[in-house]
Amino acid sequence: MRVIIGVDLGGTNIVVGGVREDGGALYALASERTPVQQGAEAVIQLMLRLIHECGATIRREAPGAEVVGVGVGAPGPLDTKRGIVIFAPNLSWHNMPLRDRLAEAIQLDTTLDNDANCAVLGEWWQGAARGARVVVGLTIGTGVGGGIVLEGQLFHGVSDVAAEIGHTTIDLNGRRCKCGNYGCIEAYASGPAIAARAVEGLEAGATSRLAQYVNGDLKAIDAQVVYQASRDGDEFAQEVVRDTARFLGATIASVVNILNPDVVVICGGVTLAGEQLFAPLREEVRRRAFKPAVAACRIVPGSLTGRAGVYGAAATFKAQRWGKV
Amino acid sequence: MRVIIGVDLGGTNIVVGGVREDGGALYALASERTPVQQGAEAVIQLMLRLIHECGATIRREAPGAEVVGVGVGAPGPLDTKRGIVIFAPNLSWHNMPLRDRLAEAIQLDTTLDNDANCAVLGEWWQGAARGARVVVGLTIGTGVGGGIVLEGQLFHGVSDVAAEIGHTTIDLNGRRCKCGNYGCIEAYASGPAIAARAVEGLEAGATSRLAQYVNGDLKAIDAQVVYQASRDGDEFAQEVVRDTARFLGATIASVVNILNPDVVVICGGVTLAGEQLFAPLREEVRRRAFKPAVAACRIVPGSLTGRAGVYGAAATFKAQRWGKV
Repeated sequence: MRVIIGVDLGGTNIVVGGVREDGGALYALASERTPVQQGAEAVIQLMLRLIHECGATIRREAPGAEVVGVGVGAPGPLDTKRGIVIFAPNLSWHNMPLRDRLAEAIQLDTTLDNDANCAVLGEWWQGAARGARVVVGLTIGTGVGGGIVLEGQLFHGVSDVAAEIGHTTIDLNGRRCKCGNYGCIEAYASGPAIAARAVEGLEAGATSRLAQYVNGDLKAIDAQVVYQASRDGDEFAQEVVRDTARFLGATIASVVNILNPDVVVICGGVTLAGEQLFAPLREEVRRRAFKPAVAACRIVPGSLTGRAGVYGAAATFKAQRWGKV
Repeated sequence: MRVIIGVDLGGTNIVVGGVREDGGALYALASERTPVQQGAEAVIQLMLRLIHECGATIRREAPGAEVVGVGVGAPGPLDTKRGIVIFAPNLSWHNMPLRDRLAEAIQLDTTLDNDANCAVLGEWWQGAARGARVVVGLTIGTGVGGGIVLEGQLFHGVSDVAAEIGHTTIDLNGRRCKCGNYGCIEAYASGPAIAARAVEGLEAGATSRLAQYVNGDLKAIDAQVVYQASRDGDEFAQEVVRDTARFLGATIASVVNILNPDVVVICGGVTLAGEQLFAPLREEVRRRAFKPAVAACRIVPGSLTGRAGVYGAAATFKAQRWGKV
């Protein structure tokens, strides 16, 4: 039985696990904080330790298992062919030859792909988008990433940039985005952007109990606090969630008109908002997109919370080395 | 030598021509006004006459040529597999089984695909996007259509709706679009939308010589008049063209971030605006999209003016019947 170790390198956590070749079993899932402040070498050493420990656990728990390789998902832009992280702002990395650094140390065949791509491919392989022909995925957390899976293959575009759906313009004179553009959906619907819109409203005098959730320290408001207050009936927090649904709905409507997918899967912390977000979001897409495109498309939360990136990283290893997942 | 007759059915004109199998020759190109007012039967009879005349001319001009089939491009949404035009507002057609109506009358194998898809595939096959791996095309005329060509194959999505790039939202609270959505690029950059923005500006008191081009009849202003006035130095007309570039640039930036193409090809009347449109449009994309995506992408006007749809319709026949163009 062959097992691939999947590694999901994020700006917050590193998650590692062993995935059986057919996707039917997940071994030794482990997660640790990414030591960003200690520099690139510390991050790589921690990745190596987690990979070693994962391999040891697999050999103990699944005798007869052969670890055949390591698939790594990392923030981009990347050069997947050369295995290089070109630029990762959350890690302060530039031109890091991550794939070969890992492969030399662990003496295992290693591949690299974009972290959001991996999460979406994971949801297609073993999660909420299983079996779909055209999958568009959004990963919503500190930023808004994306992935496109066509007939079981990740779509990379001509220079590995494709699926940057977080940088779709929904208001060409809108909020400034970290990428330099104005009006990207990321500037409205990432976790920090949701919090920022809530704080702006409070500072402008909105009536709300949101401040009580953080003992008056508005800087401590994050997206999860907004969802909680919304669930508790706070009308201003509900308005912030509905606006988030409207912004995401406009983006997804555009993508549904462009790619006509059978599944749009939304991954990341935003899924914790549940139906209070997804119901108005689906309604917004229905209002905005073409009927035959809407009729063909399910819009669903990811089902592999915390594991999509690991499954997907293992899947990209299969795709890069064996031609298909 | 095998020849395919390509038919480009538009709301304004029907264009027909014979395309040699390898795309290297175009025979008997002819165009007539679409008799929309006279009803569907008149339109179909004219298509049949043009196809017959085209076949006759080919047999005369290219002895030894064998006409093997007919590829038709028609406005959509379509069901390409069943050969049906589901709805074509400019023709007032609903559920028209166009492919089989034509095939029975002419006794030739016939295929159907979306007109904008055909134009973009034509530009990939024999025009400005030749040889590109990932092509995104916009056709700008009465509406704004789109096409996506991946590795030489049209991308249709799961229900033939894909590539409706004209209905990408650039301002979620923006201008009402005919499709029912608010802020689609079509509501800003179609020919009629360009004219409407110019007229709105004039009615609001803009200083301009535009009205003189139409003897004071503002209803007679169309996009071509705006381009001419802009070229003649009218500052308000130049502003309308620059705004058009900005709107299109925002749309194309989003699509470049999503699909990471090597070529974006822009077809239709808007290309007559030339560099006064394309220069600021490229600048807008550069400002808005990701650098590695911009670096990989040429943004060019189509080079098969008036013929892209015919080439592309013949190419879709090849794709549907022989598996590749």
